[in-house]
Amino acid sequence: MSADLSTVLLVDRHRGTLDQALEAVRTRAFWSPHPEHPKAYPDPDAGRAAFEALAGRRFALDQPGTDGWTGDERSPFGVELGVHYPHPDPDVLLPAMRAAMPVWRAAGPEARALVCLEIIARINERTHEFAHAVMHTSGQAFTMAFQAGGPHAQDRAVEAVTYAYIEQVRTPESAEWTKPQGKRDPIGLRKTFTAVPRGIGLVIGCNTFPTWNGYPGLFASLATGNAVLVKPHPRAVLPLALTVEIAREVLAEAGYPRDLVCLAVDHPGEGLAKTLALRPEIRLIDYTGSTAFGDWLEANARQAQVFTEKAGVNTVVIDSTGDYRGMLANLAFSLSLYSGQMCTTPQNLLIPRDGIATDQGDKTFDEVVADLAAAVDHLLGDDARANALLGALVNPDVKSRLDAAPGIGDVALASRAVTHPDFPDAVVRTPAIVKLDGAKTDDDSPYLSECFGPVSFAVAVDSTAGALELLRRTIRDKGAMTVAGYTTSAQVEQELEEVCFEECAQLSLNLTGGVYVNQTAAFSDFHGSGGNPAANSALCDGAFVANRFRVVEVRRPA
Amino acid sequence: MSADLSTVLLVDRHRGTLDQALEAVRTRAFWSPHPEHPKAYPDPDAGRAAFEALAGRRFALDQPGTDGWTGDERSPFGVELGVHYPHPDPDVLLPAMRAAMPVWRAAGPEARALVCLEIIARINERTHEFAHAVMHTSGQAFTMAFQAGGPHAQDRAVEAVTYAYIEQVRTPESAEWTKPQGKRDPIGLRKTFTAVPRGIGLVIGCNTFPTWNGYPGLFASLATGNAVLVKPHPRAVLPLALTVEIAREVLAEAGYPRDLVCLAVDHPGEGLAKTLALRPEIRLIDYTGSTAFGDWLEANARQAQVFTEKAGVNTVVIDSTGDYRGMLANLAFSLSLYSGQMCTTPQNLLIPRDGIATDQGDKTFDEVVADLAAAVDHLLGDDARANALLGALVNPDVKSRLDAAPGIGDVALASRAVTHPDFPDAVVRTPAIVKLDGAKTDDDSPYLSECFGPVSFAVAVDSTAGALELLRRTIRDKGAMTVAGYTTSAQVEQELEEVCFEECAQLSLNLTGGVYVNQTAAFSDFHGSGGNPAANSALCDGAFVANRFRVVEVRRPA
Repeated sequence: MSADLSTVLLVDRHRGTLDQALEAVRTRAFWSPHPEHPKAYPDPDAGRAAFEALAGRRFALDQPGTDGWTGDERSPFGVELGVHYPHPDPDVLLPAMRAAMPVWRAAGPEARALVCLEIIARINERTHEFAHAVMHTSGQAFTMAFQAGGPHAQDRAVEAVTYAYIEQVRTPESAEWTKPQGKRDPIGLRKTFTAVPRGIGLVIGCNTFPTWNGYPGLFASLATGNAVLVKPHPRAVLPLALTVEIAREVLAEAGYPRDLVCLAVDHPGEGLAKTLALRPEIRLIDYTGSTAFGDWLEANARQAQVFTEKAGVNTVVIDSTGDYRGMLANLAFSLSLYSGQMCTTPQNLLIPRDGIATDQGDKTFDEVVADLAAAVDHLLGDDARANALLGALVNPDVKSRLDAAPGIGDVALASRAVTHPDFPDAVVRTPAIVKLDGAKTDDDSPYLSECFGPVSFAVAVDSTAGALELLRRTIRDKGAMTVAGYTTSAQVEQELEEVCFEECAQLSLNLTGGVYVNQTAAFSDFHGSGGNPAANSALCDGAFVANRFRVVEVRRPA
Repeated sequence: MSADLSTVLLVDRHRGTLDQALEAVRTRAFWSPHPEHPKAYPDPDAGRAAFEALAGRRFALDQPGTDGWTGDERSPFGVELGVHYPHPDPDVLLPAMRAAMPVWRAAGPEARALVCLEIIARINERTHEFAHAVMHTSGQAFTMAFQAGGPHAQDRAVEAVTYAYIEQVRTPESAEWTKPQGKRDPIGLRKTFTAVPRGIGLVIGCNTFPTWNGYPGLFASLATGNAVLVKPHPRAVLPLALTVEIAREVLAEAGYPRDLVCLAVDHPGEGLAKTLALRPEIRLIDYTGSTAFGDWLEANARQAQVFTEKAGVNTVVIDSTGDYRGMLANLAFSLSLYSGQMCTTPQNLLIPRDGIATDQGDKTFDEVVADLAAAVDHLLGDDARANALLGALVNPDVKSRLDAAPGIGDVALASRAVTHPDFPDAVVRTPAIVKLDGAKTDDDSPYLSECFGPVSFAVAVDSTAGALELLRRTIRDKGAMTVAGYTTSAQVEQELEEVCFEECAQLSLNLTGGVYVNQTAAFSDFHGSGGNPAANSALCDGAFVANRFRVVEVRRPA
């Protein structure tokens, strides 16, 4: 291969990272190959300039089957991006992608992993540029866009590559099989085992976390030998377009067809994701978004393996605490971060109506809610800090839900508009907390539906046992990406665990410091459980990668 | 635990086997914990007597929710079994099975694996009894029923337990996670990871290989913490009823609820499998059988992970050979074994119409077909040997297809009825070979549908290239459990491999000795690829077990 990126070079650059990642997912101790502090990345101005230079331009990718240009992203901070992307003709693009696959399959698991790690490393080098792209598509504040959209997303990408690699190499490339035949000569066979791809993977991106939620599926499919077509959310194209551009560049430098990774951006209202999802060439789909479309994909894209992360209702059970201030501060942060626009943000705070025991004495239901409201106020009292945490509302639907919140119940904390000094058009809002009575829960109870955005419900329950029952029902019927609990009782802790084991949800207990229920760390934490209605897969485990390829055995007489 | 089977005892008995199995699936060298020769198992008469003592009896299992008795198995060898099995009321049985699960979940992966291995060991001890039960439900000849229904099925069971164990322990039970915070104190979390089951697994058995095809799903689901409901084929209940009985016995002795494994036998025409498959408690389904019902399960049992092995069309590409006699003998055996009633039996023999080169000189198409017919005749010329290989036709549908074969094309080898000395009512038939022209293949071409049973088609193709194209089309449209090829050309060999890589099928090349395309060995060979329409899973790989459980993480401040 006369490629610029030889395998020797790639091994030298990335095999060590792969080995460390293999060890990290085995021990699940803290590890990351990507520093998360912006200062660790040189030349922020160049990153900003690179981002700004993209505005109003055609984002040319030289893909086959481009039949026009499209795109009308507008930043939640009010900036018009005006980038135009190639619009695909699937009848030309998909066959070209399929044609690119045999040489990628033949490269084998290690070469594919190393090429993927090179792509991720190139992305990492441009983290400042990505941070602006993520900020101005998702509405995340800069620091969060930098971290969650940059190193944390890159971590999840490396994690997916690592799992894909493990899964493919657990079967050896070849084996000698010798079966004794008593006194006769043994029978011998020579066997080879080859990981073969499923086809083309379709990644359907989301508006809020284009890279963090998009990378695991993209890299899991690519590392297992598939081609990958990236269909971003129409309002969050740019970070994934940059990703596709870098992937194509690295593939070409390493001697592989760049059409292994392509971009598909649709015309407004075209519904390209639906069309693509049903194409016979598409054999894998990774989707993050609404339950309605996720369910549609699972029901209709029968020719594909479909990995979905949909809506859920996240619960916090508050039974008691030995660190009342810590609990309030921790929850206040969780409710505020990115204006609650995370699939992992707590929505329902279940609190016994008779109050809870704390290290600050017993607190009534109303006191707990008022103190939490005060903690949020305290956290967001300064506009600069509020802007740094909240970011902007990502779309008008979120604002509508927030505006409607006071009609649902007693407002314990009213949302407040915050002005952004740099972006006057940004819709920045602090979270609202609404008090509700959980005594008469029925299917129409507002807290039994996802209210995506900065609205949470403080639900008065009869007892902790009642909270656990409501938790169980919520997970079972609505799904949950996260569950949190606060208790000083070993008994309650065990009961909480039991509910989460039985209903299959990830549980965080007594978080009072600098770790928040809405954050998960790659290589250690699972994002979602894959076992309740919120998501049919978890990031990242064996099940996330094992069916993205198959093993073909060829056997011959030895 | 005051159980008879303590964990210490189980570790002592089976941990060594588990460790050897872990090594076997890693190297895929030959290994089996179960001798395959009947003489390795003591007291055949006791096994036969135990089988005979079951006839005409109620097979009591003491399951909850038994609302009557059912069963009307009649051996393909003509013997009325007359065993009656409990008929279940799912509204009582399924909740009881769910209630049994928490303690099994809490046992953890190793204890579950060891209990499963004890169940398999008890089954192994009764291999002679199982051999008769398999013979008189499947119609397999005794030796095959003994081997395929006994040690080979037990091997597949151990393999499934092994994969289930690997998958569950790749995430540690706990981890300490410490994230540096620059000059501040690091953040610490203590994390636990628990494999939790999906729910109840439903195993829908088949007529021809009740144990071999039933065990992988049964043991994969059980070893991952699920309860398992076994719904045998109405004509092949007994081997799985014995299995359920033994499993319940071992579970109870080990201190676990016996209702973790239950049997469901339906009344004639009741369609219980369909009812059960849609129950919300059923979260895993393992099915072997017709494409129609497999497709129905995949489309409708949306609440469950569905693992199917359906119909396929298996092809042999005959390009050339360096061992003409060996090839003919090998193929003759493959066509004859169990009267071709294996999902892995070759159906279409694609042979260039201009003939092939062999070590015995060039052979025309007609010569190859005639010589193959003669090889079958030679193999089955002696009635005793014919009976020992063929077994009985499993049901009247197979006989109908065989009777219809002469109407499809020129008969190159006519089927012959063989009388069984011990079972005069058995329908024993030698295979038929029908010659067809592959020049004008269309969707109605008879060789493009599965003709399950002792009928194969010798299809004249224009060239080896044409054979490869027809092979590709057959796998893509109809699926294939096996592909075989004979060639002396390195180029053709590579092209055959390429088709199998691209269409995802398992390939056996130039088999001329004592290994046959229709046989796969546990721990080394994959049965099916899971990547073409014949089956959506392979026995046994990571994908077969990874989604039978989920991991629930609980994290707390350290």
